[in-house]
Amino acid sequence: MTAAIIDGRAFAARIRERVAGHVARLKDEHAITPGLAVILVGEDPASEVYVGHKREATVAAGMESFEHRLSADTSEEALFALIDRLNADPKVHGILCQFPVPEHLDERRTVARIDPAKDVDGLSVENAGLLATGGDALVPCTPLGCLMLLRDALGDLSGQEAVVVGRSNLFGKPMAQLLLREDCTVTVAHSRTKDLAAVCRRADILVAAVGRAGMVRGDWVKPGATVIDVGITREAHPGRPGKTRLVGDVAFEEAAEVAGAITPVPGGVGPMTIACLLANTLAACCRAHGLPVPEGLTA
Amino acid sequence: MTAAIIDGRAFAARIRERVAGHVARLKDEHAITPGLAVILVGEDPASEVYVGHKREATVAAGMESFEHRLSADTSEEALFALIDRLNADPKVHGILCQFPVPEHLDERRTVARIDPAKDVDGLSVENAGLLATGGDALVPCTPLGCLMLLRDALGDLSGQEAVVVGRSNLFGKPMAQLLLREDCTVTVAHSRTKDLAAVCRRADILVAAVGRAGMVRGDWVKPGATVIDVGITREAHPGRPGKTRLVGDVAFEEAAEVAGAITPVPGGVGPMTIACLLANTLAACCRAHGLPVPEGLTA
Ligand SMILES: NC(=O)c1ccc[n+]([C@@H]2O[C@H](COP(=O)([O-])OP(=O)(O)OC[C@H]3O[C@@H](n4cnc5c(N)ncnc54)[C@H](OP(=O)(O)O)[C@@H]3O)[C@@H](O)[C@H]2O)c1
Ligand SMILES: NC(=O)c1ccc[n+]([C@@H]2O[C@H](COP(=O)([O-])OP(=O)(O)OC[C@H]3O[C@@H](n4cnc5c(N)ncnc54)[C@H](OP(=O)(O)O)[C@@H]3O)[C@@H](O)[C@H]2O)c1
Repeated sequence: MTAAIIDGRAFAARIRERVAGHVARLKDEHAITPGLAVILVGEDPASEVYVGHKREATVAAGMESFEHRLSADTSEEALFALIDRLNADPKVHGILCQFPVPEHLDERRTVARIDPAKDVDGLSVENAGLLATGGDALVPCTPLGCLMLLRDALGDLSGQEAVVVGRSNLFGKPMAQLLLREDCTVTVAHSRTKDLAAVCRRADILVAAVGRAGMVRGDWVKPGATVIDVGITREAHPGRPGKTRLVGDVAFEEAAEVAGAITPVPGGVGPMTIACLLANTLAACCRAHGLPVPEGLTA
Repeated sequence: MTAAIIDGRAFAARIRERVAGHVARLKDEHAITPGLAVILVGEDPASEVYVGHKREATVAAGMESFEHRLSADTSEEALFALIDRLNADPKVHGILCQFPVPEHLDERRTVARIDPAKDVDGLSVENAGLLATGGDALVPCTPLGCLMLLRDALGDLSGQEAVVVGRSNLFGKPMAQLLLREDCTVTVAHSRTKDLAAVCRRADILVAAVGRAGMVRGDWVKPGATVIDVGITREAHPGRPGKTRLVGDVAFEEAAEVAGAITPVPGGVGPMTIACLLANTLAACCRAHGLPVPEGLTA
C-alpha cells in the first residue's frame, strides 16, 4: 500500500475542538450561546441514533441543543407551526429536520419552511442558489466536510482536475460547486456517464458518492490522486457470519496501491458530517449576531 | 469545411413564431396577454439598442411591452418602489432591469428585489437554486438558447461528454447545470484550467463562453463534435479599415474543418437570447395563471 490514509475521525475531532473554542469565546466575550434545534417526526430507529449523535456533539461543543419530537401522524400544519416558532426564536441559530419524515409530509416543503439563515443542513433552494452564485451559503455538511479534508490534505486546490461521481442535491452537486469555487476543473459523472473508468482516471481529486460498494476499482484511479470515498453500503461481513460491515464506493485495497491519499470507510468522510453541522451552526450564529465567521470552518 | 453550420437566426425565428402562436392562443382562449416590463436606468447607448430590440421582439410576439426609463441619478429607493409596483401588477409577467446600472446601484440587490416568478433573466438566487436542485426555474436566456440549439441539432444529449469553458453566473454555471440535467457528463473549465486544449478535445459538446477572440483552435476540437460559440468580441475588421466586426471565442474556419456542427458568430447563439426571453415571459405568464407551460420552450 502506498497511499496516505486520510484520518477523518482525527480531523473531525480537531474541527469540533476548534468549534468548541469559538463557542467558548462567543460565551465569554459576547454572552452568546449558539443553539441547534433538531426536529424528529416519528420513531425511525436509525434517525434516533443520528439525532442522539448530533445532540452529544452539540453539547460537547458547548452549544445548546433543542430537541423537538413529534408523533408520526403530526400534520404539516403542526410541523410548520413549530418551524415558524424556531425561525423566530433568537436562541435558535440552526434548525434541521431529521429525514426521512413520514410519507404524508413533504421534505422539499419542510426545508423551504426553515429560514434559510438557519438552514444548517444547507438543503434549501436559497442556499443552493447562494452556493451556485458565489454568495455566503450554508453548505450541505458532507460536501463541506470533504472540502475541509481536501484542503487539509492538499492545500491549494487550484487547477486540479476533480471528478465527482454522483449528482444528488445532498452531495454531488454542492460538492462540484465547492470544487469549482476552489478553482478546480470539475467534471460531474453519474449513471449515464459512458466509460466511467476513463473519466475517473483523469482525476487528480476523485470523489465518489454513489452508494455502490467497491464500484471504483484500482485501475480507475490515477497514480497519486487523492480519493474521497463518500459512499456507505452495509453488507454481510465476509469473515464474520451473521455480522455486517460498512463499505465505501471505492475498492479500498486496490485503490490504496495507486492513490496518493485516500479516505477509508468507515473513519473517513463520515465523521466530518457532524463536525460540519456544528461549524454551520456556529457560522449561522455569528452571522445572526453580525459577528465575523471564524476562518476555515466555512466554504 | 465539413461542419454543419447551425443557423441560430433561423432557429430563433422559429422559436419566436412558436411563442407568438402560444400568445395568440392565450389571448383567444383565456383573454390573457403576457406582459414584459423592462427597466432602463440612465442612458447607456448600447443598452438603448438592446432595450429597443427587446421591445420590438416582445410586440412582434403579440405580448405587451412596458418600458420604464429612470434617470441616471435614480435612488435605489425609487428603483425598488418601481420594482415593487411591477411585482404586484398582474399585467406584468416578466420584469428585467437592463444592466449595467449606474455605479451607485447594486445589480445583486436589484435582481433580488424582483419577484423570482417574474425574474425572466433568471439571475436571482432563487432561480439559480431552483436550477441547481431540479426545480422549475426561470433559466438565464443565453444558456437556455444554447440548450435549445443543442437539442435541435442532436436530439437526446444523454451520455455525451460536454465541456463548458467559462463559469459566470450569467452563462457558464447555468449552462453546466442544464447539460447535467440532460444527462451529459459535464466538465466546467476556466482561466485556472491546466491544458485547456486537452480538456476541450474530450468534448462531444464544446461550449465556449470566455470573451477571447479565436481562443479555441481547430486542434482543440474533437472530430465530429458540436461546437457552441457564445463569446462575442468586437475587433478591427481585417479587410475594411476603420470598420469593426464581431468574432467568437472559436477560430471558426479551423474548427469548422473538424467539428460536426458549429454555431457562427454572428448568427449563432446571439439571436437565441431574445427568443428565450420571450419564451421565459410566456412560461412565467402561464405559471402565474396556473396554465401548463408549452413544451420545448423551457429547460
Ligand atoms: N455522512 C456521510 O458520510 C454521507 C452523506 C451523504 C451521503 N453518503 C453516502 O453517499 C452515497 C451517495 O449518497 P447520495 O445521497 O448522493 O445518493 P443518491 O441521491 O442515491 O445519488 C447517487 C448518485 O450516484 C449515481 N449513480 C448511481 N449508479 C451509478 C453508476 N453505476 N455509475 C455512476 N454513477 C451512478 C446516480 O446517478 P443518476 O443521477 O444518474 O441516477 C446519483 O447521481 C450513499 O452511499 C450515501 O449513503 C454518506
Ligand atoms: N447573447 C449572447 O450571445 C451572449 C450572452 C452572454 C455572454 N456572451 C458572451 O460570452 C462571453 C462570456 O460571457 P460571460 O458573461 O460569461 O463572461 P465573464 O463573466 O467575463 O466570464 C468569462 C469566463 O471565461 C473564463 N476565462 C477567461 N479567460 C480564460 C482563459 N484564458 N481560458 C479559459 N477560460 C477563461 C473566466 O474564468 P475565471 O472564472 O477563472 O475568471 C470566466 O469564467 C463574452 O464574450 C460575452 O460577450 C454572449
